[in-house]
Amino acid sequence: MNVVDLITKKRDGGEHSGDELRFLIEGAVEGNVPDYQLAAWAMAVYFRGMSPAEATALTQEMAASGEMLDLQGLAPAGQLIVDKHSSGGVGDKTTLAVGPIVAACGLPVGKMSGRGLSFSGGTIDKLEGIPGWSASLSMAQFRRQLREVGLVVAAQTATLAPADQRLYALRDVTGTVPSLPLIAASIMSKKLAAGADGIVLDVKCGRGAFMETRSLARDLARLMVSIGRGAGRGVTALITAMEQPLGLAVGNILEVREAIDALHGRGPQDFQVLTEAVAIEMLLLGDSALRKMQEESGKEAALAAAGSRVKRAIESGAAFTKFVEFVVAQGGEEESVVEPERLAAAPVVLEVRAEREGVVGALDARAVGMAVVGLGGGRQRKGEPIDHRVGVVAAAKIGEQVGGGELLLSVHAADVESAKVAAAQLRKAYEIVDEVDGAAEGEHDASGPPVVLERITS
Amino acid sequence: MNVVDLITKKRDGGEHSGDELRFLIEGAVEGNVPDYQLAAWAMAVYFRGMSPAEATALTQEMAASGEMLDLQGLAPAGQLIVDKHSSGGVGDKTTLAVGPIVAACGLPVGKMSGRGLSFSGGTIDKLEGIPGWSASLSMAQFRRQLREVGLVVAAQTATLAPADQRLYALRDVTGTVPSLPLIAASIMSKKLAAGADGIVLDVKCGRGAFMETRSLARDLARLMVSIGRGAGRGVTALITAMEQPLGLAVGNILEVREAIDALHGRGPQDFQVLTEAVAIEMLLLGDSALRKMQEESGKEAALAAAGSRVKRAIESGAAFTKFVEFVVAQGGEEESVVEPERLAAAPVVLEVRAEREGVVGALDARAVGMAVVGLGGGRQRKGEPIDHRVGVVAAAKIGEQVGGGELLLSVHAADVESAKVAAAQLRKAYEIVDEVDGAAEGEHDASGPPVVLERITS
Repeated sequence: MNVVDLITKKRDGGEHSGDELRFLIEGAVEGNVPDYQLAAWAMAVYFRGMSPAEATALTQEMAASGEMLDLQGLAPAGQLIVDKHSSGGVGDKTTLAVGPIVAACGLPVGKMSGRGLSFSGGTIDKLEGIPGWSASLSMAQFRRQLREVGLVVAAQTATLAPADQRLYALRDVTGTVPSLPLIAASIMSKKLAAGADGIVLDVKCGRGAFMETRSLARDLARLMVSIGRGAGRGVTALITAMEQPLGLAVGNILEVREAIDALHGRGPQDFQVLTEAVAIEMLLLGDSALRKMQEESGKEAALAAAGSRVKRAIESGAAFTKFVEFVVAQGGEEESVVEPERLAAAPVVLEVRAEREGVVGALDARAVGMAVVGLGGGRQRKGEPIDHRVGVVAAAKIGEQVGGGELLLSVHAADVESAKVAAAQLRKAYEIVDEVDGAAEGEHDASGPPVVLERITS
Repeated sequence: MNVVDLITKKRDGGEHSGDELRFLIEGAVEGNVPDYQLAAWAMAVYFRGMSPAEATALTQEMAASGEMLDLQGLAPAGQLIVDKHSSGGVGDKTTLAVGPIVAACGLPVGKMSGRGLSFSGGTIDKLEGIPGWSASLSMAQFRRQLREVGLVVAAQTATLAPADQRLYALRDVTGTVPSLPLIAASIMSKKLAAGADGIVLDVKCGRGAFMETRSLARDLARLMVSIGRGAGRGVTALITAMEQPLGLAVGNILEVREAIDALHGRGPQDFQVLTEAVAIEMLLLGDSALRKMQEESGKEAALAAAGSRVKRAIESGAAFTKFVEFVVAQGGEEESVVEPERLAAAPVVLEVRAEREGVVGALDARAVGMAVVGLGGGRQRKGEPIDHRVGVVAAAKIGEQVGGGELLLSVHAADVESAKVAAAQLRKAYEIVDEVDGAAEGEHDASGPPVVLERITS
């Protein structure tokens, strides 16, 4: 086998065999296939695409390119270990709330997570806003905490799907990121290698997501579900809205506080709804009693039962208690999550107020994400340090009525200078209109546009 | 400007500005643009193509990436310096005969030439079959010989269009060779850098050519004419047939002998016709009297006058005399071209005879070229040594009647073993049929299928 022949085959619209993909991925990891050949191949894939069978084989080869976590025996008898993944968005602190809820319901959650880049935040960055908390765990620590606490979040290691790390770094600098099969293989290879039996995918769409349209998000979700199923895992995908930021807070410590609110059942409406929806899907995939109920009594009954368990975990305080236990297990300061007002606060808070009366017609999630990067709360390049204190807290979201001079949002900044720059950008992120289109047609209820748009299981 | 943006622009079907192409090509030569980015860009160009304006700008940037030869003042007053280029084929020794004819007509010919690769031979390899002859000339020697002899053929130096050298080497290993604008830019960048005022392009099509179909050859020819004109050079392209080898001889020294025959007017019909056609086009582009005649009395009159001058150069012996003078100027042994039977001969000659009576329906040029590579007369990889003595001399070409047991060709080999292997391959290269399709419809005259198929001047 020869790499030029494989590039030429893909260029001419051919379908790779599993052996061909193994040859390519092994060669990429061992350094026998040079970057320039991988780059040309990736561009050919961009233009020609891949069949679901090809994408599945590619994903499995990428997953097998490094360490494959074995989580067998770490869950209570009958329970499966379920992971979740978000395709990335603005204000997306879902993992922080979902993990403790699901773990409190008795389903262990062991997650490998990443850091934020560009407008999109990362779970590890948010949690690092808690003094002492660390994502650097050995595999032994990871397994022990998963067994003992039932919840662990670690930074992805270099040994997890190294083929993806090599390929992703290359795609990033060769204009080959937006290829559906390559995106799907990148995400799913890490999920497969991370060892969970089931995976809930939160595929976001809208201007604050990598997939801007709903149809692209749906295609990606379907492909990932098909890949996961092909690799023998249970997979459910939710297509969720990312036109405006999720919840009200954007910025690492601000989001930790909001996640704690949600664990108490007091999160902003859209965030609370999404958190519970994802938790329910994880339980449906992993909990033995709910799986049995779904088979015997149907989906609706199981959904309702899962919903009750989630509500109970929140209302009883079990979810928040699990969160504290998890934070402490990874070195975090207990007081700062029990009393989150102790978490570090930005020294400058600047309010942005509405210039006219009307309804919020749009709140550009990407613009908000980039404003937070500008404040120092995110990064443009990998490895850049961030300021965990800064960010934005919205006071009005899409569909809400605002009066002239009413508060739109507050900017939390390290200094007045950067606060002013962000405020100017954020003012443009809002669109105040006389009437929201959808509202007239009943698309929005009083609580704003829907957050969960579709559920995809095959 | 940033390379990822340029790759993305081309990927999405955009048109590059001259500044963008300059940034890319300068970066490629200076090493600021890494191979993996160039490779991804080349694959995007493969899929998206280039407008003629883009291809012209790319070619000019590539030409300007190294030394630009200045041949001004080396031609007699009023005469222009005209180069020729063949897209490569089997048995294509045209330069060896055309150069001396044109030079004998008073038009200086200074050519940078290459070596053969795969099934396609190279002018330098053929001439190196002459004892002592060398293609390694300094720029000063090149200029002096051009002025004094009017004919010089030198090996391309690394300083000529280095961007093309870098890009071609990369395309070769990334499946991006067959892109029309990149092929055109590669050929024309070297021609522009080599300094001629006019260029005659011999674009071959058929199974022994890189462009297998006539329509692809026509597209390439038109694009190269447009690029050359855009860069202020006179350009004429001929589309010529390369279904079967050109002439009868394939193999370096065998071809030198056949070129000498053509200089005496005794070359095989198709080769003689092509040689004179290319010489005529070069004279029409470069000779001041003919250019004037074309303007004043029209193309037909100028063509006829150029034809007479070519015939006269051959019949008078002036063309052959010029060839000898050129060979000697570059260190070649005079006796071995004056008496070409002195040139080294292969020790083994094996005859291949027809197994049945009929008409030659096909003689696969590529198969013949590969058989000669197998004999050691060509190379699979750059830098491999070759045996100048070996090759094939055909006795029957397409359209010719052969009796059972009649000679089809003779194999000239270094040993019996390799002769037998080649003979078996060459037998398959011939197709003997009852009747040639085209013949019945009058497409072929008695001398076989036409060699010059089209003339493209814009």
